[in-house]
Amino acid sequence: MTSSHPMRTAAELASALDLPAAVVRPYGHHMAKIDHRLAAEDLRPGGRTVLVTAINPTPAGEGKTVNTIGLSMALTARGKRAVATLRQPSMGPVFGVKGGGAGGGACQMRPMTDVNLHLTGDFHAVAAANNLLAAALDTSLLLDNPLKIDPERVTWRRVVDMNDRALREVRVGLGGTKNGVPRDGAFDITAASEIMAILALATSISDLRARLGRIQIGESLVDEPVTAEELGAAGAMAVVLRDALDPTLVQTSEGTPVLVHAGPFANIAQGNCSAIADRMAANLGDYVVTEAGFGSDMGAEKYFNIKCRVTGMRPDCAVLVVTARALKFHSGRFKVKPGRPLPTELAEENLDALAEGCSNLEAHLANLAAHGVPVVVAINTFPGDTDAEHALIRERALAAGARAVAKSEVFTKGSDGGLEVADAVIAAAESGEARFRHAYEVTDRVPTKVEALVRGIYGGERAAFSPQASEQLARLESRGQADLPICVAKTQYSLSHDPALLGRPTGFEFPVRELRHYAGAGILVPLAGEVMTMPGLGRRPAFKGIDLAPDGTIIGLT
Amino acid sequence: MTSSHPMRTAAELASALDLPAAVVRPYGHHMAKIDHRLAAEDLRPGGRTVLVTAINPTPAGEGKTVNTIGLSMALTARGKRAVATLRQPSMGPVFGVKGGGAGGGACQMRPMTDVNLHLTGDFHAVAAANNLLAAALDTSLLLDNPLKIDPERVTWRRVVDMNDRALREVRVGLGGTKNGVPRDGAFDITAASEIMAILALATSISDLRARLGRIQIGESLVDEPVTAEELGAAGAMAVVLRDALDPTLVQTSEGTPVLVHAGPFANIAQGNCSAIADRMAANLGDYVVTEAGFGSDMGAEKYFNIKCRVTGMRPDCAVLVVTARALKFHSGRFKVKPGRPLPTELAEENLDALAEGCSNLEAHLANLAAHGVPVVVAINTFPGDTDAEHALIRERALAAGARAVAKSEVFTKGSDGGLEVADAVIAAAESGEARFRHAYEVTDRVPTKVEALVRGIYGGERAAFSPQASEQLARLESRGQADLPICVAKTQYSLSHDPALLGRPTGFEFPVRELRHYAGAGILVPLAGEVMTMPGLGRRPAFKGIDLAPDGTIIGLT
Repeated sequence: MTSSHPMRTAAELASALDLPAAVVRPYGHHMAKIDHRLAAEDLRPGGRTVLVTAINPTPAGEGKTVNTIGLSMALTARGKRAVATLRQPSMGPVFGVKGGGAGGGACQMRPMTDVNLHLTGDFHAVAAANNLLAAALDTSLLLDNPLKIDPERVTWRRVVDMNDRALREVRVGLGGTKNGVPRDGAFDITAASEIMAILALATSISDLRARLGRIQIGESLVDEPVTAEELGAAGAMAVVLRDALDPTLVQTSEGTPVLVHAGPFANIAQGNCSAIADRMAANLGDYVVTEAGFGSDMGAEKYFNIKCRVTGMRPDCAVLVVTARALKFHSGRFKVKPGRPLPTELAEENLDALAEGCSNLEAHLANLAAHGVPVVVAINTFPGDTDAEHALIRERALAAGARAVAKSEVFTKGSDGGLEVADAVIAAAESGEARFRHAYEVTDRVPTKVEALVRGIYGGERAAFSPQASEQLARLESRGQADLPICVAKTQYSLSHDPALLGRPTGFEFPVRELRHYAGAGILVPLAGEVMTMPGLGRRPAFKGIDLAPDGTIIGLT
Repeated sequence: MTSSHPMRTAAELASALDLPAAVVRPYGHHMAKIDHRLAAEDLRPGGRTVLVTAINPTPAGEGKTVNTIGLSMALTARGKRAVATLRQPSMGPVFGVKGGGAGGGACQMRPMTDVNLHLTGDFHAVAAANNLLAAALDTSLLLDNPLKIDPERVTWRRVVDMNDRALREVRVGLGGTKNGVPRDGAFDITAASEIMAILALATSISDLRARLGRIQIGESLVDEPVTAEELGAAGAMAVVLRDALDPTLVQTSEGTPVLVHAGPFANIAQGNCSAIADRMAANLGDYVVTEAGFGSDMGAEKYFNIKCRVTGMRPDCAVLVVTARALKFHSGRFKVKPGRPLPTELAEENLDALAEGCSNLEAHLANLAAHGVPVVVAINTFPGDTDAEHALIRERALAAGARAVAKSEVFTKGSDGGLEVADAVIAAAESGEARFRHAYEVTDRVPTKVEALVRGIYGGERAAFSPQASEQLARLESRGQADLPICVAKTQYSLSHDPALLGRPTGFEFPVRELRHYAGAGILVPLAGEVMTMPGLGRRPAFKGIDLAPDGTIIGLT
């Protein structure tokens, strides 16, 4: 089942899911937007939800998207009606370091180039809504400033879906009083926009509209928050986002349905596809297979503590994707640079390094156990792996509480290479063993919530709030705005805030340098360490290898 | 034929045009992208092309889009197979002052909200390609600067499809050496991007790719132009734009086909929909009805001297849309402010003011005659108009060389209100009277070309190049890059560079303050007077009246 399946038309896909034509809007022949209102219905009883997460990855990625797709295909091969839910890739990484986000090998989302580029335009809509609000606020500031916006305390940032480091810090409104009030400004990548967070968490048009209105763009000269509603922009922003509220139906290499919706990064945002996509998938299939970005400390934690609070869904099983190479990397013995190929030694057997690096795997198993979810460890195999390495991973994982360990060869073999994982997942999900619980209560104080993550998930000693973060916290608490879930922005390469701390670091202090309040999304975003909300291009950006042939064939986009 | 026609599906529309399914990609149920390669075929013999233009408008617009749509419907009613070609509206004006650009009354493009918002994503693709190049150049500048880009002479600007005056002048690359090389930067509105000009002029994927490669982003420290090709970005930009090269098929209120493609503004760019759309329409219909933006001094001139050079098409007839209110306004007796309703006195009979303002009409008739095209004057009627006013317009127009004058009531009556215009257009177009000629030769020197427009079209005395423009000109000539058509950026409210000079100003000096070189688009852009390539929002922006109802209905978007 690995070779070239013919792509199904969007109409065929929709029909296989028993979708009535009225809820399906085609975009080209192989994509369709599905009416978001399907997600509002009561969830079908008996459906299962599987979360796919990973250990802390190398910059090359450990195959989480590939395994999410592969698992949905293997479950289908086992007679389960599976629907995968995934984020839309950002053009930043597509043209930057990491490349596309549509899977690879025998496990891709199709049509692959559309998924990696514009898809059905949702990222563009997010950016347009975000930047409409920015233009509205700067214009209001310039023309009589009726809301008394303090230019020094504007926190709303413009966005662009591009790795553009020159926009990290800018000065806007220059050139005279016809243009604007000069002030320091900044651009984030679109995936980090609060609008993206809102799109990923909204449950209906009314909810979207209300969330947009609650967005706070900064503070007034009399210390009051200023909202998008007060600027009169929230209605128009909702209009811009209307079609984006509908997930896009695409398919895997083997024709299983995938809902792609929203694309917040997992390091600097909540790292999960939309609540609407998950609920819709639950209403269409027996199994929802959803991916959370990066490790269990990042996307999975946010899945449990942010997204599940919105969807009301409870995961039945987690799949933890590991690779021998990444575990060896966690020994700290290898030098890896983003944008460069991984060192060839990582592809050679090294049981000592692997044994050391397994501490990282153990931490992630503990994190998932802390949320009460049984775990299947999926060893994503690579050509250089040895049986001895796989045996060691199996032994350590089982000892640390994994319910099962299974080899995955989906990259090369498609569903055939994922049956072992699928069988283990079915056994776990249908065992009824899951006792899902959150890591904190939203009504806990913010330092309590952050420390629950620092100590309970990251393995650190305590959280240290900078003076700026403390001041932001005091203001939030005085306004009664602090009872929100936490969405930490930190490096994905370490369980800690410091990418150099590999394996399973302990005893560290977790520095919160800034605390952003996304009043519309309903989350608090502590920024830790040097994490940035606008990536940069490097010396060898992917775009240089991408081209368009005269016949329209896209070259070099993977 | 004016009341609510049911919308035809995109498949029905395509089928009525005998389009094979292989060239049609649906976007929703009522829009489709059509394979651009249809435009490459030899043009069908015997087809007619009608250009719709106007006098200098008031800020409210004089109904040119409405009359383009109405004419295509009336021609259809007369048994002609008509295809309209129009630009995609920009979200800047939609949320700013002017409102939507999809027509109005009984003459709209449908689905109206899609046309006014994202359509099929082409504007977003243009912005993404534009900003990818910006990120590439700033990164190259920062990381070793291998092309020796001079930061002081970067001319490439970022874009956003928004009226955002705070971005007219910015400083980028701030915050330290990890972020960028600090330099003055600027954002234009997407419609002013050279990429938009390229999309509107490209004839094939190869041509698109080649044009992107030729884009010059600025100069090196050793005075050489630096291109997108040298930055390695042109291939990825072409990939981003691939789908945008296909026009979007929509329909009028009465179901006649419309190709919407590209959206350069007529004051600051070439003001016409794409060459591909015109050629495709010519291969699908008996009559191409295309709109050029603003007056004959703006979009029509650029249609004749830029677009027709690319398409190889020759217009058979021009329609000059006039309104009594705008002609009265050209008397100079009324005060009009953008963003405010027109003064009510403009809706009252005033034959003196009208007689004075008719000088503007006469100038536009002369401009069209200079290009050898027979002209039908279409009086776009408004409720307050009187018969005496219409008679005066008719008399003056015929005396000034109009082939025919006809009343248009398409706004209220649809095709029924456009039959008089349609009959006059058929008579003119099929008369064989057209003797199309350009206003200048591309091989003329730049000052000669600009003065051909200043004296021959705008009615001025001479062009005056600023020291900056003269220096830019000298550089272009020394590099042999000056043999290109001219695309003047100036106000649309006057035949001159000065919006205060109404009617038919003469004797003025036309100030060229800057001369931009769009090497990829293959045009030279003289900027005259105070024209800006980034509009601003005002005190009463349209977005404040726009909202989304819980059932998904869009409110206030017109």
